[in-house]
Amino acid sequence: MHPNDPVTAALAGYRAAVLAKDVDAFCALYDPDIHVFDMWGRWQHQGLAAWRDMASGWFGSVGDERVVVEFSEVHSSVSGDLAFGHAFVRFSAEAADGTELRSLNNRLTLVLKRQAEGWKIAHEHTSAPIDHASCKAMLQR
Amino acid sequence: MHPNDPVTAALAGYRAAVLAKDVDAFCALYDPDIHVFDMWGRWQHQGLAAWRDMASGWFGSVGDERVVVEFSEVHSSVSGDLAFGHAFVRFSAEAADGTELRSLNNRLTLVLKRQAEGWKIAHEHTSAPIDHASCKAMLQR
Repeated sequence: MHPNDPVTAALAGYRAAVLAKDVDAFCALYDPDIHVFDMWGRWQHQGLAAWRDMASGWFGSVGDERVVVEFSEVHSSVSGDLAFGHAFVRFSAEAADGTELRSLNNRLTLVLKRQAEGWKIAHEHTSAPIDHASCKAMLQR
Repeated sequence: MHPNDPVTAALAGYRAAVLAKDVDAFCALYDPDIHVFDMWGRWQHQGLAAWRDMASGWFGSVGDERVVVEFSEVHSSVSGDLAFGHAFVRFSAEAADGTELRSLNNRLTLVLKRQAEGWKIAHEHTSAPIDHASCKAMLQR
């Protein structure tokens, strides 16, 4: 994947913003009309103000830990003013001394639109598969 | 949404193929290289042969019931040879006499690519949100 690929660039920006707990940098990755099917607790988030609230709450809850994001099996396609990608994601929480405290995996789909100011994430879908018998999320791949 | 929109057409084809339990009609909607993050039990499905196995197993398990699929809050965008859409989905099981037996909701993202033979679904992501406290899927919206 070329480093100028819009999906690769968005994933790198996501990783950096989460590591830095930087709400502004995080929100700069997204279209004002962002639509998200997020893995946790709500059926959807619509618009950047709602998504900023999610990020503020998330980053504010991290305390002096850090959240390290790793992507694998990244796929990307671009045509015209649309790009899409999918990947597996691993989130790990690190203590201030770098010790890994816990981790989980999920699945990510991104759709980006090319705007005047560059590529922005217009739609994001994260999930974990559901075990049919227990109806519980499978959080370790 | 225009009825010739590729996302709208794919959703209509999906609904019809599931109602008819028609594996060939279902598979005709998909790209040979289809990649799916499906809601149930597995981290991913890759390629139409694997996806056909899923459909055969699903349709074969339905017996003399029917599965009725309804989409709501459908969004669609097209640029170049890529299209994407997202929607809420309601699956209901009907007895042979038309009585609704049970239902569940989920969330769907589709990415389509324009091929020589028309638009085909290249990536599909379905999920339900996960309740943070119980780690259980929320199956009713």
